[in-house]
Order: sequence, then structure tokens, then C-alpha cells
Amino acid sequence: MNILLKNMTIITCDNTSMLIKNGNIGIANGIIEFVSTNNDEIQKFEADRIIDGKNRIVMPGLVNSHTHGAMTILRNFADDLALEEWLFKKIFPAEGTLTPEDVYGGTMLAMAEMIKSGTTAFADMYLHMEDVAKAVVEAGIRANLCRTPFKLNSGGKAVLIDDRQGCIEYHRNLHNAANGRIKVYVEIHSTYLFDEQALKDAAELAKQLNTGIHTHLLETTGELEFSINKYGMNSAEIYEKCGVFDVPTLAAHCVHLKDSDIEVLKLKGVNVAHNPTSNLKLGSGIARIPDMLEKGINICLGTDGTASNNNLNMFEEMHIAALLHKGVHMNPVLINAKETIKMATVNGAKAIGFDGETGVIKKGMKADLIILDVDKPHLCPMNDPVSAVVYSAQASDVDTVIIDGNILMENRQLKTIDEELVKYKVKQIAEKRLNRD
Amino acid sequence: MNILLKNMTIITCDNTSMLIKNGNIGIANGIIEFVSTNNDEIQKFEADRIIDGKNRIVMPGLVNSHTHGAMTILRNFADDLALEEWLFKKIFPAEGTLTPEDVYGGTMLAMAEMIKSGTTAFADMYLHMEDVAKAVVEAGIRANLCRTPFKLNSGGKAVLIDDRQGCIEYHRNLHNAANGRIKVYVEIHSTYLFDEQALKDAAELAKQLNTGIHTHLLETTGELEFSINKYGMNSAEIYEKCGVFDVPTLAAHCVHLKDSDIEVLKLKGVNVAHNPTSNLKLGSGIARIPDMLEKGINICLGTDGTASNNNLNMFEEMHIAALLHKGVHMNPVLINAKETIKMATVNGAKAIGFDGETGVIKKGMKADLIILDVDKPHLCPMNDPVSAVVYSAQASDVDTVIIDGNILMENRQLKTIDEELVKYKVKQIAEKRLNRD
Repeated sequence: MNILLKNMTIITCDNTSMLIKNGNIGIANGIIEFVSTNNDEIQKFEADRIIDGKNRIVMPGLVNSHTHGAMTILRNFADDLALEEWLFKKIFPAEGTLTPEDVYGGTMLAMAEMIKSGTTAFADMYLHMEDVAKAVVEAGIRANLCRTPFKLNSGGKAVLIDDRQGCIEYHRNLHNAANGRIKVYVEIHSTYLFDEQALKDAAELAKQLNTGIHTHLLETTGELEFSINKYGMNSAEIYEKCGVFDVPTLAAHCVHLKDSDIEVLKLKGVNVAHNPTSNLKLGSGIARIPDMLEKGINICLGTDGTASNNNLNMFEEMHIAALLHKGVHMNPVLINAKETIKMATVNGAKAIGFDGETGVIKKGMKADLIILDVDKPHLCPMNDPVSAVVYSAQASDVDTVIIDGNILMENRQLKTIDEELVKYKVKQIAEKRLNRD
Repeated sequence: MNILLKNMTIITCDNTSMLIKNGNIGIANGIIEFVSTNNDEIQKFEADRIIDGKNRIVMPGLVNSHTHGAMTILRNFADDLALEEWLFKKIFPAEGTLTPEDVYGGTMLAMAEMIKSGTTAFADMYLHMEDVAKAVVEAGIRANLCRTPFKLNSGGKAVLIDDRQGCIEYHRNLHNAANGRIKVYVEIHSTYLFDEQALKDAAELAKQLNTGIHTHLLETTGELEFSINKYGMNSAEIYEKCGVFDVPTLAAHCVHLKDSDIEVLKLKGVNVAHNPTSNLKLGSGIARIPDMLEKGINICLGTDGTASNNNLNMFEEMHIAALLHKGVHMNPVLINAKETIKMATVNGAKAIGFDGETGVIKKGMKADLIILDVDKPHLCPMNDPVSAVVYSAQASDVDTVIIDGNILMENRQLKTIDEELVKYKVKQIAEKRLNRD
């Protein structure tokens, strides 16, 4: 389908021209064919659909660079608890009961929420990833899915079970599948669930598969202490030693880095997924994002799972990322609106394996776009569109979502997900699996 | 009009029973006549309107305890700047051009935004407060309006001009006006705009009028240093010395308090309006809210003006208040969901002068209620309604707003404000008054 967006305020997230007023975008076969301010190209373009830009901002879709989608099932189930109680008494026991069908349902709900809040791509790490992939293929969203090569046998003493073959098959079946909407990375959950040999083997496997790694890195002081005890060095150092950083790495959290870790992350081109809401909510701490930005590290944003957020709203992550570091450092010029919106779009696309394919609005890129209805009191007057998106806009302002050139939401109605059915099913799952007492 | 809310999930914000499932609320003549879970009272109640509670949560309306409504005109006009440049090069020059009609228009837009985001009462401090009051009367919202007894002549050297008479008249005309929807406090802008005699005189005036004071207190380190230089003591200490705290005081920000200041605020019953977004965005710092809560100080929430936020969304203030302090102190049990929702409702009502009148859902209270439509992916499953409101809900989930027993919004349509006209007018004002280069 050929789609023409006419007379739009365009936030491109491209360095050459961040903002285009009264611009037109032509989309053909899933690709952005032109972005222009004159009418010549419109006249040549045969559009099946024309979307008018009155009171609309169009921008690249948001990229949720770190989440555990199916944790929607656990939303608001266990809040305001100490980390140990939260994780070991509530979250892990509940997760232990989830079937592949539950994870499929929870992921469907996550994607419904993400599309309705303007997210067009996400990086997911969870159980039963075959079922996550099935949901992603059906929904039409873009995703980076990771698969662990070592499963944890949690019955009794924790033992890593080699499942490299499962990982290889998952990669073979799904990497670049669904018209290129899916990338498959190797999962390294963390230094506390893996051991040194598993880290080396996982890194080696990612190298063999010519793909990347998605991991948690130095989220808490607990992890920091644990890794020093276990390896004689912190998680970043053991990752470097084991070759993890020799492949494209998506490292979530990175809260407790020392200066030398930041140097290594820069040197190795590690992508850092900042999860401000989750880090605050769990009391993990505050990542050194301004220091990392200054070094030129690619910073993107993630919501983490809904058990530690408790939603998948990337507008909130933008708000908080733009605000938090200014306050903590008492410096109002840190992390401005342009930097923030790039973290949530182009930086995220790069971090999750779609560099040069999506994340900016320009000719030749895949068409992952969101259109905001800005005819709202909280967006009036429109003194600065980029500031408006970062500081004032709400997820509910997203009116239309286009992914890979397909309209997945229009007038806030989902086109590929049966929202009512998905909500119904997840309510049933929660009823069955959660002990709410 | 008699309104019956049937089979609702009720978050009362009352200590005795925070949450009532399948409850009914009867509203007659603006007052909550009953809250019950049996059907006896329903049968006796003659309702003009019945609102069904399927997929709905009803809770007290949110109280925005510190804002400058008409600054909506300046929304997204000057962001990511150093404080001095922001205030002296952008905000003050723009504000200097605003006419009374502009302030009326900007306040109307602020109220449209606030009602649409579930705020039923606010405390406003701005220029041309006569025009703010006019807008409040027309819109039907509840408000604490403050009026300065000393105007600042900003032509050349700053000189305070005695306008106590204007303040007395404003109080006489408006305090308890509009069916009791308006309270009038005395404004003390700050220790940097007032001097010692003005502080004493303003406190004395508030005492005479038997009313309270709305002020900014220790927002920035700049103010802290300035007050020590000017008075030989910090702003909290000079306020105490001048008798400011001897009347009900609503003190916004309170970021830079030392232990003894916290003791004094507790002793004097000062109400603290926490403005987390504004304090972060301007790089002011992070208020010691957990310490103040531990002492038993009444903490409420405010958005501040839209130039430092950049919206009037109290759901965002709840999110950030609940998250921020956990992260800063690396303690996930600080400021739980129940404490947060009370800050945004009952604590706010008390702080802005409506203690015992509104802020909780119970028999005899004025009916200031909001109804959320929770049939949304981001609120599914509903494992905990209070957590859902604090951590997951969005302003756009507010479906119906009742203030003083009147329905001011239904199905997200405003009943007392012409939203289209208000947006149109404010766009014109911004076009005329702001130099956007």
C-alpha cells in the first residue's frame, strides 16, 4: 500500500534537519520513498491512502530497547517491596507457573499497549521465546528477540543446562524473518545467572552466528558485589574478558559503572539501554547517563518489564530521562529534548540491531512512523514541537502507528491485535496464576 | 442534581477503608450523601443520573497544590536553558507583556488541561489574579487563589509597592465565593522579592484576615545563598522570625531544608507542596520528602507552571514522586502507592485550605470525584487498583470529572469550558506575545 502523509510537522530525528514544517512523506512497499516540502513529488506519487497533517506531528516510532513483554501479567502485582522479597517471594514464583500460552498472551497484551503508546520496535528477553516470536509475527511489530544458550534448571540447586542448539535453531528460524522485522540476539541474562564458561561460550556463539548479545549489566549494587565475589572483577570486566563486548552488545541498566567501565563500553561500542523508571522503582540507583553521553556511548531507552515500571510507556521514559539527570546533577542543560527524542528513536534502532534500517525519517528507510494528534490543551500552544513531544505529550496522543509500511493503528484502533480478546485472556491468566493475597 | 455512581471500584483516600470494591456513591446537592456496598441506600435514593461502574475506578479529584496556571501560554517556549537565562531572558520578559485578558485566557486553558487530566482543585499564584478568579468562577473548578499585598515595581530598581488594600478587597470579594469553591490566601512570593518588613506585614495581614499564605520556599541553592546574605539566615528561618508560619502556610518546593528547618515546618504545621518535575527540570535539586514524611509533615503535590514542567498532569507528578525518592535513596519501599495517592488528593485538599471539605470519598464531603476508564491495555490486569493509579494510569484515562457535585467533564468532553475557543485564543496570545527566535 502506498501511503502519503501531507502537510505534516515532521520530527525526523535525523541530524541534518531535525524538524520539517509542512512536509510530505511518501511510503511505498514499506519504504520511505520521499520526504519533501514541495509538491512535485506528491503529484508523481500514486497514493492508496492520504493522511492529512492538520494538527499532527509525525516522528519515527519509539524503540523500547529493553523489556520483558509478557510480564504484563504481573502488572501491579507486587509493588513497594524490598528487592529480595519482590523478586524471590513474588516475581520468580509467579513466573515459574507461566506456560508458553501464557507468555504468548502476555506478549500480545504488551504489544497492544506498546503500539497504543507509539512503540514500533522493542527488544524482548523472556521465557518461552518461541511463543514471543509467534506473537510478534502476528502483530506486525518490529522486534529484537533474544534466546538463551544456557537454560537455568531452577529445581533445587541452580544448574546451567547447555541449550546452544536450541539457540542456533531459534536464530536460524527467526533472524531476519517476517520481512526483516525480527532480529535474533543471544541472551546472556546476567553475570549472576551465568558463569565464566557460559559467558565465553555465549559470546563465541554470538560471534559464530554473526549476531549480537542482549544482557543485563550492573543493574544493582547487589550484582556489583556478587560479581566481584564470584569473578574477582565486576560484571563489565568479566564481560570484556570473556569476549561478550566483541559482538554488538545491548546492555540494559548499566547503573553501577566506574570510569574505566565507561571507557570500555565506549571503546567496544556497547549500546546502553537506560531504564530510568525501573531503576528508580526498584531502588537500583541512577545510571551515569550524562557521563556516558559525553563519551559518545550510544544511549537508548527501555521500560523494563511491567513488574518494575508498571507500564510500557516510552513517553514516560522520555520525560523521566530528560528530567532526572538535570535534577540529580542540579544542571538544567543536561540531556536536552533533542538528545532525549533521539535516545527513544534512532539510538534505540541502532542498539537493537536495525541501524540504517529504521529510527529516522528519511528517504530509503523502512517506514516505522507514529502520528500524534496535537490538538489538545496540554500541547497548546505549540511553541516547540520537539520539546512538546519530550516534556508535554502523552502516549494517548498517538493516533496512528505505521510499522514496516503497514498501518497497525488508526484513530487509536488496533488493526492486527484483537484488543478485547487479549485483555480478556490476560485477566484469566492472572486470575489463574497469581496468588494476590 | 442527584448523581448515583453504581458498582464502582472506589479508592476513598480515607484511612479507615482505602479501597471499596463494588461500592455505590450517592451525590445530592454537591455533597456525598452515602458510600455503601449494600443496595438499601440506592433504593431510597432518587437519582437524576446513574453512572455505571463497569471497568471504572472512582477516586477523589487530584489537587494541584502549586501552579501558575496562565503560564500555559509559555509552554515549551524556553527549555533546556540555564536558570538565569531561562528566567531573565525568556520568562520574565514574556510575562511582562501579558495583559489581564491574556492571563484569563491562559488560565482557562490551564483549567481545561487540568480538568481533562483529573484535577479538581488547584492553588494558583500569578499576575492579574482578578482575571484568574473570573476564569475559576466560570469553569466551576475549586481553587485556592492568592493575592500579593506588595506589588513589585519592576521598572528600573525593584521596589515593593504597598497594595495591602487590594489584597484585603480581593479576599473580601472572593474568599469562600462561588459556593465555597474559592479560598483566598495572601501571597508571599519569596524571600528574594519581599523584604523583612514586607514579610512581617504580609504575615500580619493573613492573621487579620484569618487566612493562610502561599509562598515559594527554598527552591534553589541560589535562593538559599541569597537569603543568608540578605537576612543573615535562610528563608525558612526568616519566615519563622517574621510570623509567616503562624498562619496556615502552603510552601512550594522546600528543596534545600536543613534538619532544623524540617523540625520547624513540622512544629508549625506548614504544608509542603512537592513539585518533583519542576525541581528536576530546572535543576533545583531533590526535596527531602522521605525525611519530611517521617516527621509527619503534610506533603502534597504540584506541577508548578507549564514553563518548568511542561504540562499540568498530576498523574505524572504521582509517578515521579513515587519513583524518584526510591531511586535517589536506593530504597524501593520509600513512598508507596497509598502515600502517593494521598499526597495528590487528601493532603492537597488540606494544604490548600479545604481540609474536611474535600479530598476523600466519604459521607458528608463535597463531591469532587474523578472516574477513570480502566478498560485499557496498560491497566490490564487490574492486580491492584491503587498501584494501577499511581504507577500505570494516564491522565487520558480520566473519563468523568465531578466538582462540587457538578459534572464538568463526561466522556472526556468538557461541559463548562469551550475547549476549541480557548485553544484558539491562547495560540493567538502566544503568537502576539512571544518572540520565538
